[in-house]
Amino acid sequence: MSILKNYINGNWQSSTSKETIDVVNPADQQVLAKVPYGPDMKNDVAEAVIAAQKAYREWSKVPVMKRVQALYHLKSLLEENSEVLAEIITNESGKTKAESFGEIQRAIENVEVACGTPMLMAGDVIEDIATGIDEMMIRQPLGVAACITPFNFPSMIVFWFLPYAIATGNAFIVKPSEKVPLTMMKIFEFIDQLDVPKGLVNLVHGGKDSVDAILEHPQIKAISFVGSTPVARYIYSKGTANGKRVQAQGGAKNPVVILPDSDIEMSTKIIADSVYGCAGQRCLAASTIITVDDQQREVKDALYETVKSRTTGYGWEEGVNMGPVITPESKTRIEGLIQKGIDEGAQVLLDGRNASISGYEKGNFITPTILENVALDKELIKTEIFGPVMSLISMTTIDEALSFVNSGNYGNMACLFTGSGANARKFRNEADAGNIGINIGVAAPMAQFPFSGWKDSFFGDLHGQGKHAIEFFTQTKVIIERWPNIWSRKF
Amino acid sequence: MSILKNYINGNWQSSTSKETIDVVNPADQQVLAKVPYGPDMKNDVAEAVIAAQKAYREWSKVPVMKRVQALYHLKSLLEENSEVLAEIITNESGKTKAESFGEIQRAIENVEVACGTPMLMAGDVIEDIATGIDEMMIRQPLGVAACITPFNFPSMIVFWFLPYAIATGNAFIVKPSEKVPLTMMKIFEFIDQLDVPKGLVNLVHGGKDSVDAILEHPQIKAISFVGSTPVARYIYSKGTANGKRVQAQGGAKNPVVILPDSDIEMSTKIIADSVYGCAGQRCLAASTIITVDDQQREVKDALYETVKSRTTGYGWEEGVNMGPVITPESKTRIEGLIQKGIDEGAQVLLDGRNASISGYEKGNFITPTILENVALDKELIKTEIFGPVMSLISMTTIDEALSFVNSGNYGNMACLFTGSGANARKFRNEADAGNIGINIGVAAPMAQFPFSGWKDSFFGDLHGQGKHAIEFFTQTKVIIERWPNIWSRKF
Amino acid sequence: MSILKNYINGNWQSSTSKETIDVVNPADQQVLAKVPYGPDMKNDVAEAVIAAQKAYREWSKVPVMKRVQALYHLKSLLEENSEVLAEIITNESGKTKAESFGEIQRAIENVEVACGTPMLMAGDVIEDIATGIDEMMIRQPLGVAACITPFNFPSMIVFWFLPYAIATGNAFIVKPSEKVPLTMMKIFEFIDQLDVPKGLVNLVHGGKDSVDAILEHPQIKAISFVGSTPVARYIYSKGTANGKRVQAQGGAKNPVVILPDSDIEMSTKIIADSVYGCAGQRCLAASTIITVDDQQREVKDALYETVKSRTTGYGWEEGVNMGPVITPESKTRIEGLIQKGIDEGAQVLLDGRNASISGYEKGNFITPTILENVALDKELIKTEIFGPVMSLISMTTIDEALSFVNSGNYGNMACLFTGSGANARKFRNEADAGNIGINIGVAAPMAQFPFSGWKDSFFGDLHGQGKHAIEFFTQTKVIIERWPNIWSRKF
Amino acid sequence: MSILKNYINGNWQSSTSKETIDVVNPADQQVLAKVPYGPDMKNDVAEAVIAAQKAYREWSKVPVMKRVQALYHLKSLLEENSEVLAEIITNESGKTKAESFGEIQRAIENVEVACGTPMLMAGDVIEDIATGIDEMMIRQPLGVAACITPFNFPSMIVFWFLPYAIATGNAFIVKPSEKVPLTMMKIFEFIDQLDVPKGLVNLVHGGKDSVDAILEHPQIKAISFVGSTPVARYIYSKGTANGKRVQAQGGAKNPVVILPDSDIEMSTKIIADSVYGCAGQRCLAASTIITVDDQQREVKDALYETVKSRTTGYGWEEGVNMGPVITPESKTRIEGLIQKGIDEGAQVLLDGRNASISGYEKGNFITPTILENVALDKELIKTEIFGPVMSLISMTTIDEALSFVNSGNYGNMACLFTGSGANARKFRNEADAGNIGINIGVAAPMAQFPFSGWKDSFFGDLHGQGKHAIEFFTQTKVIIERWPNIWSRKF
Repeated sequence: MSILKNYINGNWQSSTSKETIDVVNPADQQVLAKVPYGPDMKNDVAEAVIAAQKAYREWSKVPVMKRVQALYHLKSLLEENSEVLAEIITNESGKTKAESFGEIQRAIENVEVACGTPMLMAGDVIEDIATGIDEMMIRQPLGVAACITPFNFPSMIVFWFLPYAIATGNAFIVKPSEKVPLTMMKIFEFIDQLDVPKGLVNLVHGGKDSVDAILEHPQIKAISFVGSTPVARYIYSKGTANGKRVQAQGGAKNPVVILPDSDIEMSTKIIADSVYGCAGQRCLAASTIITVDDQQREVKDALYETVKSRTTGYGWEEGVNMGPVITPESKTRIEGLIQKGIDEGAQVLLDGRNASISGYEKGNFITPTILENVALDKELIKTEIFGPVMSLISMTTIDEALSFVNSGNYGNMACLFTGSGANARKFRNEADAGNIGINIGVAAPMAQFPFSGWKDSFFGDLHGQGKHAIEFFTQTKVIIERWPNIWSRKF
Repeated sequence: MSILKNYINGNWQSSTSKETIDVVNPADQQVLAKVPYGPDMKNDVAEAVIAAQKAYREWSKVPVMKRVQALYHLKSLLEENSEVLAEIITNESGKTKAESFGEIQRAIENVEVACGTPMLMAGDVIEDIATGIDEMMIRQPLGVAACITPFNFPSMIVFWFLPYAIATGNAFIVKPSEKVPLTMMKIFEFIDQLDVPKGLVNLVHGGKDSVDAILEHPQIKAISFVGSTPVARYIYSKGTANGKRVQAQGGAKNPVVILPDSDIEMSTKIIADSVYGCAGQRCLAASTIITVDDQQREVKDALYETVKSRTTGYGWEEGVNMGPVITPESKTRIEGLIQKGIDEGAQVLLDGRNASISGYEKGNFITPTILENVALDKELIKTEIFGPVMSLISMTTIDEALSFVNSGNYGNMACLFTGSGANARKFRNEADAGNIGINIGVAAPMAQFPFSGWKDSFFGDLHGQGKHAIEFFTQTKVIIERWPNIWSRKF
Repeated sequence: MSILKNYINGNWQSSTSKETIDVVNPADQQVLAKVPYGPDMKNDVAEAVIAAQKAYREWSKVPVMKRVQALYHLKSLLEENSEVLAEIITNESGKTKAESFGEIQRAIENVEVACGTPMLMAGDVIEDIATGIDEMMIRQPLGVAACITPFNFPSMIVFWFLPYAIATGNAFIVKPSEKVPLTMMKIFEFIDQLDVPKGLVNLVHGGKDSVDAILEHPQIKAISFVGSTPVARYIYSKGTANGKRVQAQGGAKNPVVILPDSDIEMSTKIIADSVYGCAGQRCLAASTIITVDDQQREVKDALYETVKSRTTGYGWEEGVNMGPVITPESKTRIEGLIQKGIDEGAQVLLDGRNASISGYEKGNFITPTILENVALDKELIKTEIFGPVMSLISMTTIDEALSFVNSGNYGNMACLFTGSGANARKFRNEADAGNIGINIGVAAPMAQFPFSGWKDSFFGDLHGQGKHAIEFFTQTKVIIERWPNIWSRKF
Repeated sequence: MSILKNYINGNWQSSTSKETIDVVNPADQQVLAKVPYGPDMKNDVAEAVIAAQKAYREWSKVPVMKRVQALYHLKSLLEENSEVLAEIITNESGKTKAESFGEIQRAIENVEVACGTPMLMAGDVIEDIATGIDEMMIRQPLGVAACITPFNFPSMIVFWFLPYAIATGNAFIVKPSEKVPLTMMKIFEFIDQLDVPKGLVNLVHGGKDSVDAILEHPQIKAISFVGSTPVARYIYSKGTANGKRVQAQGGAKNPVVILPDSDIEMSTKIIADSVYGCAGQRCLAASTIITVDDQQREVKDALYETVKSRTTGYGWEEGVNMGPVITPESKTRIEGLIQKGIDEGAQVLLDGRNASISGYEKGNFITPTILENVALDKELIKTEIFGPVMSLISMTTIDEALSFVNSGNYGNMACLFTGSGANARKFRNEADAGNIGINIGVAAPMAQFPFSGWKDSFFGDLHGQGKHAIEFFTQTKVIIERWPNIWSRKF
C-alpha cells in the first residue's frame, strides 16, 4: 500500500512524518492509500512555505495576462480528465458518478472566472483628485496563502480559492482532507504540467497538526477554510490571532419552506435531491422542510413517494442515486441523531438505519430517512446532521415560517418553493441567510458570485469565489502622485 | 466641572459609571471636562446596543436613497459649524487651527462619498446564468457596528466608518478616545438633528473597559479600530475570537526617500510638514528620511533651515505651526526616545526637548527635533516615536533605500521624492506599504480610496473609506431563482 | 408682457432675435410670457458656445471633488424652492401640483447621483500589464454639450443630463421647449448662484432654428434630446452626420398586460394613474391595456369605476387629479385620434371630448377617455396618442399578449400585473422594451439607472441618467507607460 | 484560380455575384485568389442576415456561461494554428512574420477578455430602491451586428468586436477588406468547428456594395468599422441615419515628442519600430517626430542610424524588418506625398522611393524614408501618409510641442519619450488623443481597455475591446418590481 507523497517545490516527495492513516472507500472499507499524518507534518508545511515564498517572488513579477495562461491550460486538463477524476472522487468520498462530475464542473467554472483576473483585479484611478495630484489604487498579491478543505467536495472547494490566489500572483498551499486526499493527488498531476514556477502550488497532507502548522507559520498571509462551525471558529480566531486574514466557512442547518401555491410534484423532487444529494453531506443540503398551511399531508405524501424510490449504493454504479456517508463513525453519529429525534418526539416516516447494500455490506450506508413532527423546542431541530435525514415540520403562515428560519444559528442557505412573486420577494428580503433559493433546492452560488454564508456558517467578510476571492488574495495599494510643474519646465 | 454624558437612544444621558477621568488641554493642562470611565461602562455599552439594535430594525427597512438624506444634512451641519468644531479639536488635541480645519474637511469628504451609497452598494445580477435561472447578489446591513478611535484625529477617523455604516443600513456606536471626547460631543449635537431613528448612532465614553464590552457584546457584528499596533492586534484577535468582522489599523514608522533629482527646496518643505504636522502624532507622519547618493549635506541643510523656522505653540494662535503632544506622559516618552537615539549613536541636529512656550509653560511641548545618522542596527530605527522627531539617514542607491523601506515591520506609508518617472514607477511597484506618495509628504488616501495599511499597520482585509467601507458594513446575499415554465402556463 | 432673456456667460441677456412666440397657460390660455424665436436664435447659440467653450477650459481643470460642490448647492436650492418651482411647472405645462412636485423630486435625485461623480468617473488601471508596462484608462470631458428638451417635463428631463455633464467637467447649453421655458428661467436663477465659471451653464431659447444651430455648431460635441420619434431621428442623424455623439429619445406606445392572478382593484388604480397622469403626456404613460383570459369584464368595470371618479381641472387646485393637455392643437389632435379609433371599430366606454371645466372654459381639457376593443389590424393601435386615452384590448394567453407587446415599433416601456413569479420572469426576460414594470404603472428608472428606451423610442447607445450619463459626457483616454530600468539606475 | 466563397448559415457557399476582383500578394503581385464583388453582393448580405437573425433567436437563449465555451475553443484553435495563419497574413498583407504573429496574439487576447463576459455583462441591482420596490438593470443582446474591417490587420481588428458580440448573445457578420480576405477564410474554418448555431457568425465578401447593403439592412442593429476618416464619417452618418448604433474608427497622424532627458538610443529604436512597423500602415504608427530643445541633431543622427539598418523585403523571410505596402496605387500615393513634402520645403534624409528588392522586383516596396524640417504651415504635416515615412520636426519647448500635438484634426495617439515624471504627467493630462504612450512607440490599448480614438479618429462613443465592446453589443433593460404585501398574505 503506497504512502501518499506531498507535492512541494514542483516535486513529489515523501513526507518527513512516518505516521500515516488510511484512506478508505466508504462503500466497502477498502483501503485505497495511506496518507502521512501527525506532528511531524509541520516540517512538510515549513518546507512548502519556503518553496512557495520563493515561487511567489518570481510569480508576482509575471504579468497577470501571462499568469492566467496557466489557468486556461488547467481548465483543459480538468475537462479532458474529468472521467478519471470523477471515479477517484466517488471512490474516496462515496458520491455518485453524477455528483462527482457535478463538482468537477463547478471547479472548472471557478477556473474560468479566474481566467478573467486581468480585468477583475484592475484598480481605480482618479486624475486630478486635487489640482495636480493623481490618485490610484492597485492590487498586489499577499505572498503565500493556504487552504484547508473538507472531505465532502474533494475537488471543488479548493477551486473556490486556488485559481484566484495564483491568478493574482500569490503562491499557494493546499491541505486537503486526510479522508479524501486522492482527488488532489490526481489534480496535482495536472498542476505539475502547468508552466508556473516550481513551488507555486504545493500539496501537503495531514490532519490537525498540519492545520496548526499553517495557522502558526508567519509567512502564510491568508487562510481559507471550509468545514464544521467549531473548527471554522478555531481557524478564524487562531489565524487572526497570528495576524493573518482568514475566511472560514462553517456548518449549516438549512431550512426549506414550501408554500401551497408551489407545484408540489416538482418541488418535492427538487427538495429530495437537495436533502439526499451527496448523502446529505453538503453544507447546502436542505435539512428542515417546512410546510405551510393545510398542505402538510399532500407534501408529506409526495416527499414520501419520491424519496422511497431513491436507490442507495456504490456511487459509480449506474442507477444509484445516493452513496454511503464518509466513515463508520459518521454513520453511527447520524443514526444516533435519528434516534435522538425520535426520543425528542419525532415520528419516523422512513427509517434509513440498519441499511444493508448487497455487495457492499461493509459500506457506511444509511438510506433516506424522514422524520416528521420534529420537536421545535428540543435540540435536534438545531443540530447539523450532515447525513441523509429530512426533518419535516409544519407551520401556519409564511411569517411563522420566516421566524423559524431566522431563529437558527446558521445562515448558509434558506429556500422557498412558491409560485408567488410577492412571497418570493418577502423571503429573499427577510430570510437571514447568505444564499437564498427560490424554487431551487441547492442555492449554490455560481463561480461569479461569493459563496455567502452568514451567522455561524461563516467567519470573516470576504467569501470564496468571484470578486470576493480576488479581493481576499490581494492587498490594495494606494498611490498618490504629484509632479510639480516646477519639474516640467526644464524644456 | 461637568461630567460628559453619553448619547444613547437619541438622548443625552449620564453614565452608569461614577468613575471619571479628566479631559485636559495639552497646551496648558486646563481641565476641560470629566469623562466617565471604568468597568461600569459596560452597562452603558449594553444599553447603547439595545437602542442600536432596535434602531437597526427600523433603519434597515428605510430605502437607501432616503437614508443618505441624513448624510447630506450632516455635511451641511459640519460645514456650517466647522469653526466651532475646529476650536474644540485644537483645545483638546493640541492641533493647530489649520490642522483642525484640515481634518474636518477630510471628515466631510467621507460623508460625501457615503452620500453615493445608493450606487456603491448596488449588487450584481446575471440573467439566465443557467437556462431559466437568474442569480443576483445584493448587500444587506450587518446590524450594529462600532468604532473605537484614537486621540490624534478627534473628528476625522470616526468618519472613515460612521457614514458608510449608517448609509448601508446599520446602527452605530462610537467610542471616542477618552483623551479627546469633546469633539464627538459637539458632532453628536449635529447627529441629534438628523432625521434618523432614535438609537441609530450612539456615543459611549470610556477606556479599555468600554472597549472590552464592545469586543464581547454578541450583538455587535463589526468593529473598526484605529490606534497603536499592540492594541490593534488585541482588538483584531479578541473581536474575531468572538466571531465578529474586524478592521484594525495600527501604528507606523514611515520612511521617505529623497533622490538627488528632486527639487530639494520644495521637497524638504513638504517633508517637514509631514514630520511635524500634528506634532508628529499622525499614522502617516514621515519619520525616517533617507537621502540617497551624495546629496546628504544639501538635504540636511535644507531640512535644517525649514525646520528651525517653524513656530511651536498653542494651536489656535495665528502663526503657530505646531502644537503640543497629547499628554505629559507622551512628552516624557518621546524625549526618552530622543535620548535613546542619541545613546544608540545618533547626532542631534535640532533638539526639541525642554521646550518652554511663553504663556503655555505647562503645555506638553516638544519643538521640532532632528536626529542624524540614526543607527540602522539598533532599536530606535524600528520604533514608532509618534512625536515631532525626524530621523535622518543616508543610503547609496535607490535599491538600498528600497531594501531598507521594505525591512520594517510596518507598512502604512512610503514616500519618494524624485523627478524621475522610472524611479517613481520602481518605488510604487516595489515598496511594501499600502499608501505610497510620490512627491507627496502625507500619502493619505482621499475618501474614495481605501486607507490601505499593510503589514503590522493593519489587521483585516477591508479597510476604512470608500468601497471597502461599503463592503465591510454589508453582508452579501446571493439569490438564485428559478420560475419553472410549468407555473407560467396558467393563462 | 416681458420677453424672456437668455442666460449666457453668466448674464441674463436679451436675445438677438426680435421674433417671439407666446408662452401660454394651458388651463386658461393666459399668456405668461413671450419667448424669443426664429432664425436669429443661431446668433444666441453661437454666443453661448463661445462662453461655454471658455468656461470649459477653466472648469475642466477644477478637480472633480470641487466641481460637485456646485451640485450639492444646487440640490439645496431646488429643495428649498420646490414650491415656487412646482407652481411654475403647473402653470406652463398644465400638470397637477403633485405631478409638479414629483418631477422636481426626480430632478433632485439626478443631482444626487451626479454628486457621486468623483467615484463614478474613476478609471481603471492594471499594473504590469506586460513586464514593466502599466496601463490605465481615465475619463476626460468632451467640451461643450447641449440638451434639447420637451414640454412635458419642464424641469426633470434637463437633469438626466446637466448634472452629469458639468460634474464630469463639460460646459452645457440648455434649449428648453419654447412651450415651457419658464421653469428653466427659475432654475437658472439657482444656477446663477452656483460657484462655477461664467458661461459654464447657458440657457438659450427658441425652436427649430435654435435646434439646428446646435446641431451644426462644430464646437458642440454631444447632444442629448428627448421628444417625439420623428424629431429624435432627425436629431440623431443630423447630429451624427456632423460628427457628434448623440443620444436621442423618442416616443412610445406603452402596453400594459394585466393577468387574472393580479389584484384587480390595486392594479387598475395603478394603471389609471399611469394612463392619465400628466394627462397622458408622458413617454412612460400606459396606453394600451391588455387583459388576458376571461377577466376582461371584471377589469373593465374596475377601470371604469376608478377612471370616472378622477377630477380634471386646473392643476394647482386641491383635489384635481388631471390637468389640461399642452395646446389647443394638441387637444384637437387627440380628439381626432379618439374619433379615428371609433371609426376603426372601437367602442367608447368613456368619452373625454368636449370637456368643459368650470372656471377654465378656455383650457385644453380632455377628460379621461376609454376606448374598448380597439382594432388590432388598424392604425390607432400603433399610434402614439400622448393624451388621456386608454385603449382596452383582450387576449387569450400571456404568450399572445407578449407577441402583441413585441410587435410594436416602440420599446420604451412594457408592464405586467400579476401575482405569479413565473409570469413576471417570463415577461421581463422576453418583453422587447427597455423599461419593464412588474406591478408598476410607470416604469421610470431611478436616477441610478439608465433611462433605457429600445427600438424607435431611442437612438444611440448610452442613455441618460447614472453611469450611462457619465460615460456619454466623457471620453476615455488610455495611457500606456513604460519606464525602462535603464532610467532608474542613476543612483 | 478559385473564387472565394462566403460562409453563410454554417455553410461555405458561392456568392450570388459573378463579378470578382483579385487578391494579390503585395510582395510579388501574385494573384492569390479571386474575391466576389459588386452590386449583387447585397443578395449575399441579405441571405447572411436571415441566417444570422435565426441563429440569434436561438443563441440569445443559451446561457452566457455556455456561450463563452465557444470562445475558449476558439482561443485554442487560434493558438494551435498561428503559424499557418501568420503566413496567410504575410502573403496577402505584406507584413513581416513577426508582425503577423503579433497581430494574432492581439486577436487572441480579445478572445480571452470576452471569455470573461459572464462577469462583464452582469447588471446592477438595488433592493428596496423605494419601500417595497426593487430595481435592476440587465443587459440583453441587440440581434444581428456586423463589422467592416480594413486591410492592415487582416485578423486582429475583427476580434475587437466579434468575440464580444457573440459572447453577449448576438449573431455576427464579418465583411473583411476585399484586399485581404484570405485570413478570414482561414479563421472561419476554425469558427466552423465551434459548437454554435448555424448562421451565428457569417462571412460576406465584397467592397462598397456590401458595405452599403449592411448599412441599409433594417435587421442589422450595430455596425463596427475601422478604416479611413472619410469612410468612417460615411459609415457613421449613414448607419445612424438608418437608426443603428455605430462605432467608426478613422485615420490618424500620430505625433511623437522626444525630450532631451530621454534615453536617445532606446527611444529612437522604439520610434523607428513605430514608424516603419507594418510599413507604416497602422493607425497607431508614429508619423511626426518632434524633437525639443537643442537635441535635434543627436536624435536625427540616432534615428538615421537605426533606420538605415532596417531590411525591407518579403515579410516571411528571416531577417526582414519591413514588407511592402498594400498596392501599387498605395505606393504611388505615398511616393507622391514624399514629393509633396519636398515641394513644400522638407529635406529628404532618407529617400525610400524607387526601391527594388531583389527577387521581388514587382513588389510594392518603399524603403524607410525620413523627411526633415517638414513645413508646419503646409499640408503634408496634416495629411495621413499611411506608409513608411517619418517627418522630423523641431520645437523649442514641451509647451510648444503640446500645442502642435493638439492642433491636429486626428486624436488616435500621442507619445512622449522622457525620463521626467512631471513631463509625462503633463503630457498625459493635456495631450488631445485617446491613446497616450509614455516611452511607448505604439500605444495600442490591450484588450482589457477601449481602443480610444478621439476627434476625427473616431465617431461614436463606445469603442472596441473590453467593457466598451460589451456595452456596445448589448442594450440595457431596467426592471422595476413591486410585489405588494397584499399578495403575500395568502398564507
